[in-house]
Amino acid sequence: MRALKGHGTENDFVLVPDLDGALTLTADQVRALCDRHAGIGGDGVLRVVRTAAEPEAAALAGEAEFFMDYRNADGSIAEMCGNGVRVFYRYLQRAGLVDGPAAVATRGGVVQVRPADDGEITVAMGVPRLLDAQPVVAVGDLDEFDSLAAVTMPNPHVVVQVSPDEMAELDLTVAPVVDPPLPDGQNVEFVLPLVARRIRMRVFERGVGETRSCGTGICAAVVAVATSRGLGADGEPWTVDVPGGTCRVVWRPDGIELTGPAVIVAEVDVADELLGLTGVPA
Amino acid sequence: MRALKGHGTENDFVLVPDLDGALTLTADQVRALCDRHAGIGGDGVLRVVRTAAEPEAAALAGEAEFFMDYRNADGSIAEMCGNGVRVFYRYLQRAGLVDGPAAVATRGGVVQVRPADDGEITVAMGVPRLLDAQPVVAVGDLDEFDSLAAVTMPNPHVVVQVSPDEMAELDLTVAPVVDPPLPDGQNVEFVLPLVARRIRMRVFERGVGETRSCGTGICAAVVAVATSRGLGADGEPWTVDVPGGTCRVVWRPDGIELTGPAVIVAEVDVADELLGLTGVPA
Repeated sequence: MRALKGHGTENDFVLVPDLDGALTLTADQVRALCDRHAGIGGDGVLRVVRTAAEPEAAALAGEAEFFMDYRNADGSIAEMCGNGVRVFYRYLQRAGLVDGPAAVATRGGVVQVRPADDGEITVAMGVPRLLDAQPVVAVGDLDEFDSLAAVTMPNPHVVVQVSPDEMAELDLTVAPVVDPPLPDGQNVEFVLPLVARRIRMRVFERGVGETRSCGTGICAAVVAVATSRGLGADGEPWTVDVPGGTCRVVWRPDGIELTGPAVIVAEVDVADELLGLTGVPA
Repeated sequence: MRALKGHGTENDFVLVPDLDGALTLTADQVRALCDRHAGIGGDGVLRVVRTAAEPEAAALAGEAEFFMDYRNADGSIAEMCGNGVRVFYRYLQRAGLVDGPAAVATRGGVVQVRPADDGEITVAMGVPRLLDAQPVVAVGDLDEFDSLAAVTMPNPHVVVQVSPDEMAELDLTVAPVVDPPLPDGQNVEFVLPLVARRIRMRVFERGVGETRSCGTGICAAVVAVATSRGLGADGEPWTVDVPGGTCRVVWRPDGIELTGPAVIVAEVDVADELLGLTGVPA
């Protein structure tokens, strides 16, 4: 199997081009590909398939030429990923399959993606919704924090503001305790507003742990900080630094856009043995 | 750059074939290759070069045709690795460069490697040395353990026997405290002897943390358990289960041999941008 490895702010993926939908990618194969020691390694797999060639997505073929079949590293089906869709678009661009703005079909709906002026990639992330909930968050030995906001993107987020010392000390090897939790659980973003419209952020992702970056979390952080300052959806650019890099966000009344890097680091020729396609690894 | 990814009991490596010694592989490039999110990912890099073509190793050219230039993931120089040298040999075998027993030059000396009957690979790991030291080892909230033995392979190991419950509960996210420590520090192996000559083992590697496997640690564990039972270097086969798989060990008076799997999972075409060879990743 031919594949590629790429990442967006260090949220990394194994890309599997399968334009004609010829592959059957099992959960076992996804786990084998994503295994960081026994496989290629990645937070997930992005299979690239023409929308018309994928029965699950064919109804969207009139709106988007390509479907992002996104699987989590554990083999389960996933919907959308703001970092993943940039890497997906970078592949299409690099393969000469798109040039300029493009719609990408995902299990979370059709997403508009376009190249930014500086070579980065911009994704329309939808309209955020502020919730009434104001849970408190406890992390290890640190005090409880009042949340700045709870936001759906549409996945659920709780955003907490911390001090510079707290940002450095936060132990996110264990899950933060959110009280009361949102109905479907939540990602928790810890934000440190810097000068002007710049934010430093760490994130604990629901069911995963601390990650290097989270696209929807970056958007939720901007919504929370902007709202707390009475700035709202004013269309001005924000910059968010996460452990894996830096993204930019613009929040307008009709939706929020995330701009960031996407890098293909290697083309990969996967051994049949890894995929269980022939024999057993020696 | 053409590379491969492979592993031995999930100790994983980026292999860089460079038979004629044409490459200069900087510490930055090694770190970029081994980065598990922004690069290919691995515990280290194994550069494959003809001994005669490598100034550092050329004096060994009469003894071994190939030199294993082993670098740690942090870019530093490393000596030998029992799992790595199997993966190195697998590459040579697969590329048609060896067929049958072969000597491999390493910074730790020349190592004899040969295929085992079942497709696995056997490495002569040298003569272990039992030390007089009998430190105690403390791990998190568990009681202190008396060590079974301290062994050099020639890197230093302290081996501790634990119960099935302790093996399951051990929290190796923090370093075990060894009192007194060996002069150069140590890897700590936690062993659970099973039936007959079979051992289950977890390992905390000096400067690294818990790993999926450690070749010298597997040998040290057999030496410690065999000695504690009065069996010694009797040439009978032992089996050791580690989190990343299973190896076999035979200890004879003239040395100890480690046999285990080695798998190449992919061929990799690394982007110039990752290696800093051209431009900046987009």
